Amino acid sequence: MKFVRFKTDKESVIKQGILAEGGVKEIRGEIFTQWEYTGENLPEDSVRLAAPLAPNHIIGIGANFVANEEDLPEKGPDMPVFFFKPNASVIGPGEEIKLPASVDEAKFESELAVVIGKEASGISEEEVFDYVFGYTVGNDVTAPKFFHEDGHWTLGKSFDTFTPLGPVIETEFDALAARIEAVHNGEKKQDSPTSLMIVSIQRMIAYLSNVMTLKPGDVILTGSPVGADFLKENDEIACSIEGIGTLKNKVIKVKQASIV
Amino acid sequence: MKFVRFKTDKESVIKQGILAEGGVKEIRGEIFTQWEYTGENLPEDSVRLAAPLAPNHIIGIGANFVANEEDLPEKGPDMPVFFFKPNASVIGPGEEIKLPASVDEAKFESELAVVIGKEASGISEEEVFDYVFGYTVGNDVTAPKFFHEDGHWTLGKSFDTFTPLGPVIETEFDALAARIEAVHNGEKKQDSPTSLMIVSIQRMIAYLSNVMTLKPGDVILTGSPVGADFLKENDEIACSIEGIGTLKNKVIKVKQASIV
Repeated sequence: MKFVRFKTDKESVIKQGILAEGGVKEIRGEIFTQWEYTGENLPEDSVRLAAPLAPNHIIGIGANFVANEEDLPEKGPDMPVFFFKPNASVIGPGEEIKLPASVDEAKFESELAVVIGKEASGISEEEVFDYVFGYTVGNDVTAPKFFHEDGHWTLGKSFDTFTPLGPVIETEFDALAARIEAVHNGEKKQDSPTSLMIVSIQRMIAYLSNVMTLKPGDVILTGSPVGADFLKENDEIACSIEGIGTLKNKVIKVKQASIV
Repeated sequence: MKFVRFKTDKESVIKQGILAEGGVKEIRGEIFTQWEYTGENLPEDSVRLAAPLAPNHIIGIGANFVANEEDLPEKGPDMPVFFFKPNASVIGPGEEIKLPASVDEAKFESELAVVIGKEASGISEEEVFDYVFGYTVGNDVTAPKFFHEDGHWTLGKSFDTFTPLGPVIETEFDALAARIEAVHNGEKKQDSPTSLMIVSIQRMIAYLSNVMTLKPGDVILTGSPVGADFLKENDEIACSIEGIGTLKNKVIKVKQASIV
């Protein structure tokens, strides 16, 4: 099932729906617990999709892909690198990635984004998929200029618009047999199977749940394949995962001066 | 005005109120926008205070105090170190800080916590206090064992129970003339005026708002005075700021094994 959020031309409020053949069926309620169809059906071209959820937390994992299977280490890191991104950084398909006035380029990173559906604390790797609601595509945009010399990534990953998510949350999906792509200004830059992850989805989510209680609506960005490149003003970036969809965004530059 | 959240012995639901002479006056609504008294008044000893809010985001600043005024640099860092803590790490006054099975000691850090009351994007230092709702006391608990060798602090600061907040949000408070203290097992370990901050409250919040849109309910931990020390099982830590109150927590150790 493909869960979406959308706006119509008539109304500015964000609604929820299921994307199906021929259109969007509106739903109401809480997608993680209880929802129902409203009876309203809209043709797909009459809606603009928004980010498919307003995340609780967004948690990313650092450098998590190798180029080829033979480069996979026998054992992943004892302690993976995790980072948070703020909710205000989320935009949906078709919205603009805004480079701050002082930033000339920012990296794109096409990623499989896991949406947690049930509270998870101290779970094992075997249990992880019981806590997953579904999957969407994420673009972990980063301004390395704002990486701190002591190693902290927080600021560089936290600018408004730096976390495109979408187009849908797909609940029927085999995350272990997926392929992550990115097409940058028409040129394919990333294209890797999820089997090239160093820390598996099961391990990263089990690990996280043993540190912090994961909540419904938490989004885990599972890392980006090799080939991530830099976005400049007027670029277009399309992140795709077959079975979920394509998340396309244009890049603009904020003209107002800023203190950062 | 002192905003609180609380439970009574009879009910497990968290309620909101105003702490005043002689007790708690219950309120309903949204403290940042519109609220009203319910008419219910409770003696203070009949309620247990909870964390005074469920934060939107918790954002901390790294190493932000000097020991003496003469150590203050003429100019703060161009790029301060910021980090996020997850909401699941929040506990209230009197709740237990839980050391994970693999962690023998965790650092306490008594801090002035700023509660944002209005959406703030791209604001100047002069405007900052217009966006502040009030102040509470925070304890930024940290397990340095989970600091990553590449510099990332995320895991070490993210364990459940690692962000005690409380006891109240005080809306009438001069943050620039405040004093932050910590008493560890009865011994005073931290005691500094906020004038010893390297990055001022105005600068850190203006800076952050130029990266990410700050939202009502965001909590900014403004840094901890020199003297922070390590907590072990059975310790008691009391973080205080005159005019706000004392945030006291005991330390226990989780016995269940964990994969981290």
